[in-house]
Amino acid sequence: MESDAVVCEACQPDAEKVEVGKLDQFLLENNSWRLSSEMDTEMLEKKYSVKNFAEAQEFAKVVGDFAEKQGHHPRILLEYGSVTVNWWSHKIRGIHAKDLTLAAATDQLFKENFE
Amino acid sequence: MESDAVVCEACQPDAEKVEVGKLDQFLLENNSWRLSSEMDTEMLEKKYSVKNFAEAQEFAKVVGDFAEKQGHHPRILLEYGSVTVNWWSHKIRGIHAKDLTLAAATDQLFKENFE
Repeated sequence: MESDAVVCEACQPDAEKVEVGKLDQFLLENNSWRLSSEMDTEMLEKKYSVKNFAEAQEFAKVVGDFAEKQGHHPRILLEYGSVTVNWWSHKIRGIHAKDLTLAAATDQLFKENFE
Repeated sequence: MESDAVVCEACQPDAEKVEVGKLDQFLLENNSWRLSSEMDTEMLEKKYSVKNFAEAQEFAKVVGDFAEKQGHHPRILLEYGSVTVNWWSHKIRGIHAKDLTLAAATDQLFKENFE
């Protein structure tokens, strides 16, 4: 599946974390996203509310298919009534500028499918 | 979607938690499953390793579709290379006998699809 994916600039070992100012600005403008951290890795996190389990499955698939096309993969937690998405760049153990773009794109996917 | 589902006996407010002896026996016989807890709720948890993100999506869908048919829903954490499944009964904030059955069935689904 990966062979058709675009090269992910955020997934290179020498990729740089997003500038703090840009991250702060993103969080200010997109206040439904928050920072979460695990071990020594900082991530963007958002919990989307949906009606039931079937809708959670549907949105997880939309986000997952989008991620495959981007060649960059979030963590997706699927529960009855919600889907929680985390974006970060594994190789740099933190948030790359691309993660901000993909977080905003995830909001757009939610709007298109569930609002 | 729920209307076609079977009635879930584990989802009734007066359902009973599985007997400690039966839970211990299950964990002894199925040692890839472990107990996890969150707030005041005890759950069964297992992390399945898969090859990549596409396989994680595939297994999450298999488990999700199975759960819909059972009318009882786990939490599914989908990541590049793994799927973590938690079974528990929301209404009783703990593990019902049915959760042991569904955990074993999840292993069977994994075997059928990925081994």
